[in-house]
Amino acid sequence: MRYRLTIAYDGTDFYGWQKQPGLRTIQEELEHAFLALSPKNAPVRMHGSGRTDAGVHAEGQVGHVDLDRELTPVQLRRALNGRLPPREVRILTAEPTTDDFDARRHAVGKEYRYRIWNTEVLNPLQARYRTHVIHPLDIGSMRDAATHFLGEQDFSAFSANPSREIDSTVREIYSIEIVADNPEIEIRVSGNGFLYKMVRSISGFLIAVGIGRENPKAVKEILASKIRTARVESAPPQGLSLYRVWYDAETNPIPALAESAR
Amino acid sequence: MRYRLTIAYDGTDFYGWQKQPGLRTIQEELEHAFLALSPKNAPVRMHGSGRTDAGVHAEGQVGHVDLDRELTPVQLRRALNGRLPPREVRILTAEPTTDDFDARRHAVGKEYRYRIWNTEVLNPLQARYRTHVIHPLDIGSMRDAATHFLGEQDFSAFSANPSREIDSTVREIYSIEIVADNPEIEIRVSGNGFLYKMVRSISGFLIAVGIGRENPKAVKEILASKIRTARVESAPPQGLSLYRVWYDAETNPIPALAESAR
Repeated sequence: MRYRLTIAYDGTDFYGWQKQPGLRTIQEELEHAFLALSPKNAPVRMHGSGRTDAGVHAEGQVGHVDLDRELTPVQLRRALNGRLPPREVRILTAEPTTDDFDARRHAVGKEYRYRIWNTEVLNPLQARYRTHVIHPLDIGSMRDAATHFLGEQDFSAFSANPSREIDSTVREIYSIEIVADNPEIEIRVSGNGFLYKMVRSISGFLIAVGIGRENPKAVKEILASKIRTARVESAPPQGLSLYRVWYDAETNPIPALAESAR
Repeated sequence: MRYRLTIAYDGTDFYGWQKQPGLRTIQEELEHAFLALSPKNAPVRMHGSGRTDAGVHAEGQVGHVDLDRELTPVQLRRALNGRLPPREVRILTAEPTTDDFDARRHAVGKEYRYRIWNTEVLNPLQARYRTHVIHPLDIGSMRDAATHFLGEQDFSAFSANPSREIDSTVREIYSIEIVADNPEIEIRVSGNGFLYKMVRSISGFLIAVGIGRENPKAVKEILASKIRTARVESAPPQGLSLYRVWYDAETNPIPALAESAR
């Protein structure tokens, strides 16, 4: 039986999604939780919609697993949540799906949110989930710059290590919205896929534009160069969260955590 | 020179405000940060508007200290923040005040906020700062019950260990507002002062009313009994935050963290 899961996590104390020997990762935590449910403790392989880096959070990561056991959505969710660290990793939904569902290959869109706290002193109750920017940000310029990222383009210049991409460095950005509710600023980016560190590179550049160090128009020329230089800085991981992932035939993208967990 | 401070902290990993031998407390962290600024390293005593318990947060705690050194508000704030754990304790404002200012005795009002996440699965990005309540809460009943706490009353039945209060167990509650933005629920309580565990006892009872275990009208009879029984449970500390403290001649209470930190 194949199951589809929606997963939320506080990435602060994890070395990212992907399993790595000797390091604490989300994938490992999930596979460990599944082990107890698996007949004869057969190892279970957890497939995610994509990796998230060390320190990056998720509110709507999607994954699939094959488990040789029939459980209702509520049974599976509760069994897993009972075995996962309560303040760090939560299964929001768990439901049977078709055998050919693939969380990574079938994803048609993802939304990331990059969160900034833009004031002299960072609220400690926000510190784990926001990036602190002291210099006042010019939201108008950031919105100007954001428009240049839209559409299907080669994002090599806004990714780290583009040569490691197997297929292509072209991706399509569907929308970038900058929601400002002083002192909170949120960059919401959705697209069909993202290169390694692409959202953090875009966010880092938008911050550079916001503080006046870069011009909004520079985005076009940097994209055209297709070369990553030191001019593009990756914004720190703690501000980033994978907000949702959606699939074909879902007219409405996966609902946000608030609703899906009901 | 006497200085007045506004302080925010994530209380998760502290044994509360008050200094205790061998334990990590907010007061100790602050006094330690002051030590480096104090001429001849003379110990500095940090006075708060009141204690907060282990695990309780603050977004607008107020304190005063005497420091034999003249510093501008910006100098003092930056010097302290440079010596405090960035994700845990922040000085929002620091300014010279009159020699007779007393953060505890001169406070005329305090507002606490008790935060609840009311859904089957707790968002891990909210887990440090909210109490998880799975059973759906009836906000109408909670608001009914809340009205009975208003005004000047003896709150012995809604405090822990009332006999340790030196003066009186009478306090005045100015307002209780229940803000519901599903699945987030916030109980905002303001008053002239609070007994030990009073806000957590009130919040715990409001939750019991919300899940239907208690009747809103029971508040009156329990208050009248003046005796704390097991019927009143203290809600857990992580949902609670001391939001602001205000003083005479402040027509506008101390601004929220967002503004004050600018």
